[in-house]
Amino acid sequence: MHVADPSVSLEVLVETSKLEEALARFSKERDWDRFHSPKNLVMALTGEVGELNEIFQWMTDQEAREAGWSPVTAEHVGEELADVLLYLVRLSSVLGVDLNAAVLDKLAKNAIKYPAGKGCAF
Amino acid sequence: MHVADPSVSLEVLVETSKLEEALARFSKERDWDRFHSPKNLVMALTGEVGELNEIFQWMTDQEAREAGWSPVTAEHVGEELADVLLYLVRLSSVLGVDLNAAVLDKLAKNAIKYPAGKGCAF
Amino acid sequence: MHVADPSVSLEVLVETSKLEEALARFSKERDWDRFHSPKNLVMALTGEVGELNEIFQWMTDQEAREAGWSPVTAEHVGEELADVLLYLVRLSSVLGVDLNAAVLDKLAKNAIKYPAGKGCAF
Amino acid sequence: MHVADPSVSLEVLVETSKLEEALARFSKERDWDRFHSPKNLVMALTGEVGELNEIFQWMTDQEAREAGWSPVTAEHVGEELADVLLYLVRLSSVLGVDLNAAVLDKLAKNAIKYPAGKGCAF
Repeated sequence: MHVADPSVSLEVLVETSKLEEALARFSKERDWDRFHSPKNLVMALTGEVGELNEIFQWMTDQEAREAGWSPVTAEHVGEELADVLLYLVRLSSVLGVDLNAAVLDKLAKNAIKYPAGKGCAF
Repeated sequence: MHVADPSVSLEVLVETSKLEEALARFSKERDWDRFHSPKNLVMALTGEVGELNEIFQWMTDQEAREAGWSPVTAEHVGEELADVLLYLVRLSSVLGVDLNAAVLDKLAKNAIKYPAGKGCAF
Repeated sequence: MHVADPSVSLEVLVETSKLEEALARFSKERDWDRFHSPKNLVMALTGEVGELNEIFQWMTDQEAREAGWSPVTAEHVGEELADVLLYLVRLSSVLGVDLNAAVLDKLAKNAIKYPAGKGCAF
Repeated sequence: MHVADPSVSLEVLVETSKLEEALARFSKERDWDRFHSPKNLVMALTGEVGELNEIFQWMTDQEAREAGWSPVTAEHVGEELADVLLYLVRLSSVLGVDLNAAVLDKLAKNAIKYPAGKGCAF
């Protein structure tokens, strides 16, 4: 899928191809490809985002900002962030989406949509 | 945060530092840092994952597999995948989590947890 | 499905049968039953919860507490809460789950799990 | 909050006031009110919806339809549906939203938006 024009996509903001390959191999070795339909992967991604919410749900803002300071919480947070990324990269891979091109495209749109600054969102 | 031992983290499966910098700059220029608390970013990430679900919710498995084939759907899918990645990278950045180290750590755990193959999850 | 013993389930904490009927009729009249598989409904429910997150994501705690005070925000919040409930009730209906019995069962478990009070969750 | 005109809201499609009271009491007895801000409850609701996704993510459509048939899966599904409802009702309560009025209002809008039938959503 090409979501950005070729000249722009020469820039590399995010590089995930080695992870894509590792996940494809891991899945194939376990005969998991049949489970990895786009809809199933969206649900699995959602499940991991749910776990991320569960870590933070009762924390105060201050506790959440310091979540990386306690080794136990930091490891837990790192695991959930990794899980979200693993499923996101796997999903993009299965859909044939070039994540870097998609990101460049979205950032260009955001720069137009939010020129200087009121409101908030990327 | 260190979630992997240093010798392992020499391997680079995913590289997001340039995107982290671009997002930090984008946020600072718009005075958005005050909005980007970990809890707010988890909620924003959740919102984008919700939009991803909305794209696929009524599709058949076959339609979902072919979502990258129609330019319009492909662009929509690419945008939502990008949005999820943008918030995930921004969240990791704010929390001080090294995504590549977290991914290596999680893959190592998964390799032990799922040695050859029944069940499914990364 | 029986998740509570009959004597307990005589108590009615939540009554959704009229809504179930209204949704079943609405779906049948539009020939939507073929879309309403459990997996699709879980994804649709997730999409609505994502929209709920989007309403609150950049609000301060104080702004969130006052969300019901502005008529425009209140109407938006009411719509998303309703959407979540509609899909939840429809999903339960399709799965044959008695929501009131499930709630009674869960409350009984919670009363045992959280006898007086450290930590937080229902 | 009034989201429906009074004459319409005489109809009762969903009745949750007893559950609201039970949850308010449960929360007060455990000193949990300080945790139950709208944003925290949205995150907790999201966490439970994530768990619902995890139950169904690798199931085929057929397996998902039969999820209520196996007592073990049925109990698990019932628990997660109940958890979603508990947080939804608690959130509505904290926000001062009348769920039944919100549902009537949304159904009226849906009836206009989807007169007879193409596409799918409530």
